[in-house]
Amino acid sequence: MTFDQWTRQVLDRVESALDHYLPAADVQPAPLHDAMRYAVLGGGKRVRPLLCHAAGELTNAAPEALDAAACALEMIHVYSLVHDDMPCMDDDDMRRGKPTVHVKYDEPTALLVGDALQSQAFVTLTSDVPGLGDSAPRQASLVRELALASGSIGMAGGQAIDLASVGHSLTREQLETMHRLKTGALLRAAVRMGALAGDTPSADTLAALDKYAAAVGLAFQVVDDILDVTADSATLGKTAGKDAKDGKPTYVSIIGLDASRVLAQQLRENAHEALEPFGARAQRLAELADLVVNRVS
Amino acid sequence: MTFDQWTRQVLDRVESALDHYLPAADVQPAPLHDAMRYAVLGGGKRVRPLLCHAAGELTNAAPEALDAAACALEMIHVYSLVHDDMPCMDDDDMRRGKPTVHVKYDEPTALLVGDALQSQAFVTLTSDVPGLGDSAPRQASLVRELALASGSIGMAGGQAIDLASVGHSLTREQLETMHRLKTGALLRAAVRMGALAGDTPSADTLAALDKYAAAVGLAFQVVDDILDVTADSATLGKTAGKDAKDGKPTYVSIIGLDASRVLAQQLRENAHEALEPFGARAQRLAELADLVVNRVS
Repeated sequence: MTFDQWTRQVLDRVESALDHYLPAADVQPAPLHDAMRYAVLGGGKRVRPLLCHAAGELTNAAPEALDAAACALEMIHVYSLVHDDMPCMDDDDMRRGKPTVHVKYDEPTALLVGDALQSQAFVTLTSDVPGLGDSAPRQASLVRELALASGSIGMAGGQAIDLASVGHSLTREQLETMHRLKTGALLRAAVRMGALAGDTPSADTLAALDKYAAAVGLAFQVVDDILDVTADSATLGKTAGKDAKDGKPTYVSIIGLDASRVLAQQLRENAHEALEPFGARAQRLAELADLVVNRVS
Repeated sequence: MTFDQWTRQVLDRVESALDHYLPAADVQPAPLHDAMRYAVLGGGKRVRPLLCHAAGELTNAAPEALDAAACALEMIHVYSLVHDDMPCMDDDDMRRGKPTVHVKYDEPTALLVGDALQSQAFVTLTSDVPGLGDSAPRQASLVRELALASGSIGMAGGQAIDLASVGHSLTREQLETMHRLKTGALLRAAVRMGALAGDTPSADTLAALDKYAAAVGLAFQVVDDILDVTADSATLGKTAGKDAKDGKPTYVSIIGLDASRVLAQQLRENAHEALEPFGARAQRLAELADLVVNRVS
């Protein structure tokens, strides 16, 4: 199977799993469920679900367990986008090529959509499907991994540092710390949860995956910063040039565009190196590192 | 032990457990952790932790497991208060006798405090303490119970219905549906999670507890509505008369003050009846039903 065929297959699986794990639009309260589905379905690069499925190949994880873990990750990711886009945060009107939730609906709905998507992620991880329903230890470890990665010492904490940094000049180290929490923690969780959804991974396996995820997570952010200045809004599906306009510190503003491109390629190589112990079983993870670095949107 | 001694003992345990399960104020990002601790510690009636501990007596739950469940419940409850108080929702300045989080800090902090408290609840439920660390099935069932009760078919869903109902006249049935989700679901989870934290409860036990929780949950709301018109802000620790001013439908506005008082007493009796199968082991649950109905704040 080519990489394109593999990603298409995973994306199809994940899209129908998301449709399944989100309450139907006619379940009460219908307006909230409609807005949750608007936020989640039919858009996004689904990087976390792809990383999760790719890592699951290392531990023979059941596809249904990977689908559930992938959906939980995506629900957390989308809730963070919905809240970040709100007027009291980044105040953005466009996301994934559509109006943001508070523009399409209203602010209270955006707040509740985010809140409810976070809960739904944990409902999803404790669902009764092959590989999960028959293994409470696996459910519990997935829950803990996701909760730690999303909370105050993970994604939400990174967001707090990001907000506090607007208009301030950060060192490259401070910028890295911020991103390690804000986007890195959940990308790392995506990789680890894929592995944890199967046969219990060894400490060495998790350590190698952590190294891989650290490189990919940082590369993801460096490329985001490059695209913010080089791509247009239509291609990105969100407002281009926004970070520069908002005075947010980025890799491009701190080390420049050329050095950022060099750094992204270096991180791609680091990711490949981390995967060496796994050999061919890590093919999809290696290809995903390339995708993250070479993407144009 | 008198009821007062028992509640004091539980409240002391829960307060120090909350202090333990919330990241310390010097852990980075310190400003976020400071705000999370401000929101949670040193205030509130802790009704959900009390219900959880009382129900745990029916299934010999380990006190450490009950503390964790109680803290998770309180974190979810507080996150909902912090988000509900935000300007785009109820826009309230005072809570538990102190300035609300967005007043004391700012709006983005309030948003992130709520988000991170929800994650921290699930971190807490999967912690390695007696009664939890040794039982993944118990962790998984507690996670599922809490996630369902907080999400779109629970608390967040009730909040969505509440927002949609402002300025509209609701029937008594519609009002009841709203409250069954908005406050009832988490109170029910408090009771069920207390029982689930110990020896696996029978279906009959859970059914009796559901009946008890339905009565107590509704009574809690009816009394809230009564206090909104009869108590003053200093006693309540929040703005009195706010529901009436905001045009929110309440029991008092729909059936009147006297009928609301009769209803609260009727629900108290229903709660006691539901506990009959448990005999003396349900003493604390019975006393808590009295507390909920007879409280003055």
